Amino acid sequence: MRTLNERAWAVADAMEANAEQLRISVSRVAGTRIIDCGGAIEGSLAAGVMMGRACLADLADVSLVPSPFADLPGPAVQVTTDHATRACLASQYAGWQVKAGKYFAMGSGPMRAASAREPIFADIGYNEEPPCAVGVLEANHHPTEEAVTAIVQKLPTSVEKLTLLVAPAASVAGAVQVVARSVETALHKLHELKFDVKNIVSGFGVAPLPPVAKDDLNAIGRPNDAILYGGRVTLWVRADDEQLAAIGPKVPSTASKDHGAPFAELYARYGNFYDIDPMLFSPAEVTFVNLKTGRAFTFGRVEAGLLRKSFFGV
Amino acid sequence: MRTLNERAWAVADAMEANAEQLRISVSRVAGTRIIDCGGAIEGSLAAGVMMGRACLADLADVSLVPSPFADLPGPAVQVTTDHATRACLASQYAGWQVKAGKYFAMGSGPMRAASAREPIFADIGYNEEPPCAVGVLEANHHPTEEAVTAIVQKLPTSVEKLTLLVAPAASVAGAVQVVARSVETALHKLHELKFDVKNIVSGFGVAPLPPVAKDDLNAIGRPNDAILYGGRVTLWVRADDEQLAAIGPKVPSTASKDHGAPFAELYARYGNFYDIDPMLFSPAEVTFVNLKTGRAFTFGRVEAGLLRKSFFGV
Amino acid sequence: MRTLNERAWAVADAMEANAEQLRISVSRVAGTRIIDCGGAIEGSLAAGVMMGRACLADLADVSLVPSPFADLPGPAVQVTTDHATRACLASQYAGWQVKAGKYFAMGSGPMRAASAREPIFADIGYNEEPPCAVGVLEANHHPTEEAVTAIVQKLPTSVEKLTLLVAPAASVAGAVQVVARSVETALHKLHELKFDVKNIVSGFGVAPLPPVAKDDLNAIGRPNDAILYGGRVTLWVRADDEQLAAIGPKVPSTASKDHGAPFAELYARYGNFYDIDPMLFSPAEVTFVNLKTGRAFTFGRVEAGLLRKSFFGV
Repeated sequence: MRTLNERAWAVADAMEANAEQLRISVSRVAGTRIIDCGGAIEGSLAAGVMMGRACLADLADVSLVPSPFADLPGPAVQVTTDHATRACLASQYAGWQVKAGKYFAMGSGPMRAASAREPIFADIGYNEEPPCAVGVLEANHHPTEEAVTAIVQKLPTSVEKLTLLVAPAASVAGAVQVVARSVETALHKLHELKFDVKNIVSGFGVAPLPPVAKDDLNAIGRPNDAILYGGRVTLWVRADDEQLAAIGPKVPSTASKDHGAPFAELYARYGNFYDIDPMLFSPAEVTFVNLKTGRAFTFGRVEAGLLRKSFFGV
Repeated sequence: MRTLNERAWAVADAMEANAEQLRISVSRVAGTRIIDCGGAIEGSLAAGVMMGRACLADLADVSLVPSPFADLPGPAVQVTTDHATRACLASQYAGWQVKAGKYFAMGSGPMRAASAREPIFADIGYNEEPPCAVGVLEANHHPTEEAVTAIVQKLPTSVEKLTLLVAPAASVAGAVQVVARSVETALHKLHELKFDVKNIVSGFGVAPLPPVAKDDLNAIGRPNDAILYGGRVTLWVRADDEQLAAIGPKVPSTASKDHGAPFAELYARYGNFYDIDPMLFSPAEVTFVNLKTGRAFTFGRVEAGLLRKSFFGV
Repeated sequence: MRTLNERAWAVADAMEANAEQLRISVSRVAGTRIIDCGGAIEGSLAAGVMMGRACLADLADVSLVPSPFADLPGPAVQVTTDHATRACLASQYAGWQVKAGKYFAMGSGPMRAASAREPIFADIGYNEEPPCAVGVLEANHHPTEEAVTAIVQKLPTSVEKLTLLVAPAASVAGAVQVVARSVETALHKLHELKFDVKNIVSGFGVAPLPPVAKDDLNAIGRPNDAILYGGRVTLWVRADDEQLAAIGPKVPSTASKDHGAPFAELYARYGNFYDIDPMLFSPAEVTFVNLKTGRAFTFGRVEAGLLRKSFFGV
């Protein structure tokens, strides 16, 4: 297969070719292609789906589906991947904090696998030296020249060109691409719990798309709630049943002491993000299909009432 | 972007290229290409999806999805558009009554944007002079030469060729394309309520596909009921929250005094179509995501029991 | 239209071209292309969807959709076809027992329509002499040379090349392709009940994807339960209402005396497969839309509780 970055590059090219319909804009900063999907431009649902695909290195299907909740409107975002670890952990996880002067953005996408400086790359045993790189920046503003340079400096010399897709979570496309992370949050939690994520074969997840927020708190809070309280993920894995029985109950958000309140309420309770239990950040429900034994286990549960409170305030 | 009509033309060409599998037939009346999708021929679900796409000027995704109702069988029809006003109001809305001699059909599709004689085109600020035109006729019969001529005479001189897709609501494809109008009915109602529809950014809707009827009353009634009592629509808009709070409750079908009975029963009650409250004709549930303020509001509710009565008579 | 086998061949070619991403392997036995989708190789959800499409002669859409059950995780497998009889009965039905020496596999796919020795082909009035043939083998092992030869000998001389897709039900792809048979099981039951299946115009079905089993009993039992207790099918037909009222209640699995227990329990009760009531094997719920009269009827009901017991043992 092509490298993750080449796969994402093809998605970015398709986005540029269809920029007007996707309501996105293409510009250049320090030679890097910037595809704005919702910062200085309206963006679209379709652009969000494309961002999600690029962020998953085009190793996953991303689609809008009807709401699975009778009392929540649609759409929901569905993700299916047969390359869960590479798509979600080597690429989609937002593990790269892009900082340069006053510029800050959470960085994700396959450029992480080219940089491969995060400890997780040793655990998953993957990195690549691609001819191009693609990143996703969760940010309102285009990266500065300084920020682009900071990224380029962490990429291998094999990389001859870079594309950055930019949108804040508080935009239509940004909301879609954030909620496309249901499977990723399950994998990330499993990695934190020391599960060998290389044994995850495939993943399927659905989470409701929250209303696009305007303020930062809800922009972070609602998509988190969408996954914490509405995300349902199925993982096909190879493991021992005992291991799954032991680790399983810890995986969904129900395992956290902070489970039971919308993110915004937790933030108000603690006064900052970092005191919220990090073990909260995973899907509401996680099912393991153990390919080694043929047994399956479901842990956690969705909380539609909390979603209504988070999304609609009532 | 290409004109709406050129976009729909490409869909029509794809239909012709796949006519046998779609179970549609292609013929000519007065030089115009007639694609029969369910009048004199069986048609298909896939042809209905293609009709829906053509009617929306290929500015929307149309797909069959599982029934969102535990007590109603599938499929339902899902529509997603990032160009809601052009796709739904400039194109899909059935605002053109094609009359010529004894021939009558409700006309929709992007040919309306080329003709642009309806007052709504001034409100939405859109019209076009395309090199070709595509219309959808809800009718049992192919248009007569006289009917084709009547259409052509209302099109701008730029139009060199015309395609008409024909199917009655009482056909498989016709039922699909009618129920693909969940978002459109919300927009049309909003326009009637003097909401500035140019402020609608994107739309998503799902409505159950009713059983294909045989008689005219159910052929009109069931798809209407599907949307009135089963349609769930989400609109991303730019507005003031006060405006949405004021106009919102009037948008779903619940706002009408005639809400609560299947269309066929209302028709029997009033003896004709035109005495039924026009404010009834909108989705069961409408959610507004206000991109200006970050707040969201849901109005209305689905009525699965009424759908069973309408679709199955029990 | 091309022959069923040519259509499936194009799907097989697309699979080979994408083998690494689909996690499948391509080899040759006695000149025949063997595409292993889950026997000696891991396979994938995407490979299962492609197998399903090939098995349906690419005359159906197959997709993964969210679970329609609040208390069952996703995905479910959705099938839509406008050529139900050819796709399901002439192609997908597993009516060819491939036996040669010690090798045994249930055979399905369009190669059946080329061989056309089963009595059903006379009833549906279809067979073909294609230039190529495609079959699906539900088996752990690649066919032996002897088994390939046994297949080839039953194909017409027009067939110059053969492709066999191989996966056991106890594999990711195999589970997907088996559960893609919701519409087929309804058609097969109708054929058994002497309904003229040529009058079936279109079909739509959804059934939950069960956890991949490891042992043979669950590998057969769970996908059967998925359809028997979770499958919802809609058929667009031409018939008399009286005929549908008479035959309808016999179609869903509820009609069987053995309805109400998971397959594995029934197997334990009877001690063998062949004593289980053959009338059990059809979807949980079947809806008929009668295009001749405009009436619709639903028979049967889903049993989510039995599905949980079958899939999760609790």
